[in-house]
Amino acid sequence: MTAPVAADTAPESFRLSLNTATVKKASLETAARLCAENGISGIGPWRDVVEAAGGAQAARKLIDSYALSVTTLCRGGFFTTGFGKSATPEARSAALADNRAAIDEAAVLGTGELVLVVGGLPDGSKNLPAARQAVADALAELVPYATDRGVRLAIEPLHPMFCADRAVVSTLGQALDLAAPFAADEVGVCVDTYHIWWDPDLYAQIERAGREGRISSYQVCDWVLPLAEDALLSRGHVGDGHIDFAPITDAVRAAGYAGHVEVEIFNQAVWDTDPAVTVATMADRHRRFIKPAGPL
Amino acid sequence: MTAPVAADTAPESFRLSLNTATVKKASLETAARLCAENGISGIGPWRDVVEAAGGAQAARKLIDSYALSVTTLCRGGFFTTGFGKSATPEARSAALADNRAAIDEAAVLGTGELVLVVGGLPDGSKNLPAARQAVADALAELVPYATDRGVRLAIEPLHPMFCADRAVVSTLGQALDLAAPFAADEVGVCVDTYHIWWDPDLYAQIERAGREGRISSYQVCDWVLPLAEDALLSRGHVGDGHIDFAPITDAVRAAGYAGHVEVEIFNQAVWDTDPAVTVATMADRHRRFIKPAGPL
Repeated sequence: MTAPVAADTAPESFRLSLNTATVKKASLETAARLCAENGISGIGPWRDVVEAAGGAQAARKLIDSYALSVTTLCRGGFFTTGFGKSATPEARSAALADNRAAIDEAAVLGTGELVLVVGGLPDGSKNLPAARQAVADALAELVPYATDRGVRLAIEPLHPMFCADRAVVSTLGQALDLAAPFAADEVGVCVDTYHIWWDPDLYAQIERAGREGRISSYQVCDWVLPLAEDALLSRGHVGDGHIDFAPITDAVRAAGYAGHVEVEIFNQAVWDTDPAVTVATMADRHRRFIKPAGPL
Repeated sequence: MTAPVAADTAPESFRLSLNTATVKKASLETAARLCAENGISGIGPWRDVVEAAGGAQAARKLIDSYALSVTTLCRGGFFTTGFGKSATPEARSAALADNRAAIDEAAVLGTGELVLVVGGLPDGSKNLPAARQAVADALAELVPYATDRGVRLAIEPLHPMFCADRAVVSTLGQALDLAAPFAADEVGVCVDTYHIWWDPDLYAQIERAGREGRISSYQVCDWVLPLAEDALLSRGHVGDGHIDFAPITDAVRAAGYAGHVEVEIFNQAVWDTDPAVTVATMADRHRRFIKPAGPL
């Protein structure tokens, strides 16, 4: 800890958080323990991991025992089949119930940020405007429930290669437009380098996201080529690919964000690695590419 | 030919053009013959096919013998290694020479539109702004040469999944911004459904492209899933995927474009199909999804 902290970086900002998807084969207990052993202060669990740990209350107790902050819960969303024009009442009820359950879990876990992957085109549909409208409708329906529980809905724009099948929200600007009808503490956005690094409008939209008080999470991982056979699994450790993290991190900092930096990597080779090695690598990359000193 | 032409479609607009990449295994002669046999009036050759046909003059003679219009030449570009800050004089000279040769070939072939794939990040570089500046610098260098030969440089934005390795220009808006310093007859843009269908700003930018007189080409093919192992080969026949062609075609028409519609499909299964079947399929899909009647 002898290296100087960058002049514009408060030591408590940009601390590290392990998104549990990065260590897919580890239990929540293992993930939390590895965070503690590496001095990492945050964790972002997925709902299946929370469930496997015995539900949100048990998970909260476990995470508290390691003195970790819960930075986000992943994830709600997949609105486009439940809220679209052609959605059945049953599909709508199911989508609402699942998202309300996710909001409840976030509240119990003690995180104010529920990450939303909004969903792609419904089966057989090519109607992109309708799918996007379904997202807006779902937000309007869910915001009061979430706000009552102290949870913000955090829209995650996904890379345009997932537009058809996972998320019809593809850019930070589009996410901010969807958030605009709501208060800043009701709907936020995720800044995930993997999904938006290519965007020619990136820096203007990061500045806007900060100005509007809507940055729910800063997530990092790298764009590595070739794409994996399952494109979803193409994400790499920070530093292994083509993304220049310094200017993006500087922009997020300049936009006023001072929370955790969450690392979320979907990658079969990373998943096949000993989770202890993966978490140590993640901490090392954080030092080299995101935050040279100060607590993790 | 008994179906009525859509009221707002002049019979001579939105005619069909075969981009030779769609029938990769066919010679230029076969491709041109198949166009003629199917009543297709346009062809967009790639440079390797032109070379294999004996060069631009021989290719022009061959294409003229089938009375086809040459709608574009594919392709120039790959500027980012030749024009970036770290480019050697040799790389710069080679990039200039290759692009000037492409311009010459376009002029001989009788097309006014040279499609540019601008190039990705140079090897080892993560500097996206510098790569984009290299594109601007290359355009400035090449425009006078192209204009003297009656050729417009047509920037093709590629899907963001190709940003690192093939094109640092990812949206129509970004392409139009790069074109802005030049006259409308000097630098244009390609509207290719595959690359830009997901863009939340698509319709505003198509309108803008038309207003600015810069639509060099309207290219169509479909977004099919899953992505191919080589992501470049994921393009499908119109109608086989998730893109809604009617509103995009309507927008291109409303923007004042009345030229050919070029079909460019990179897909191993399509390439493994008898070219005669591929071209017939392409004509059928054009009738069903783009232009119900009138000459092809």
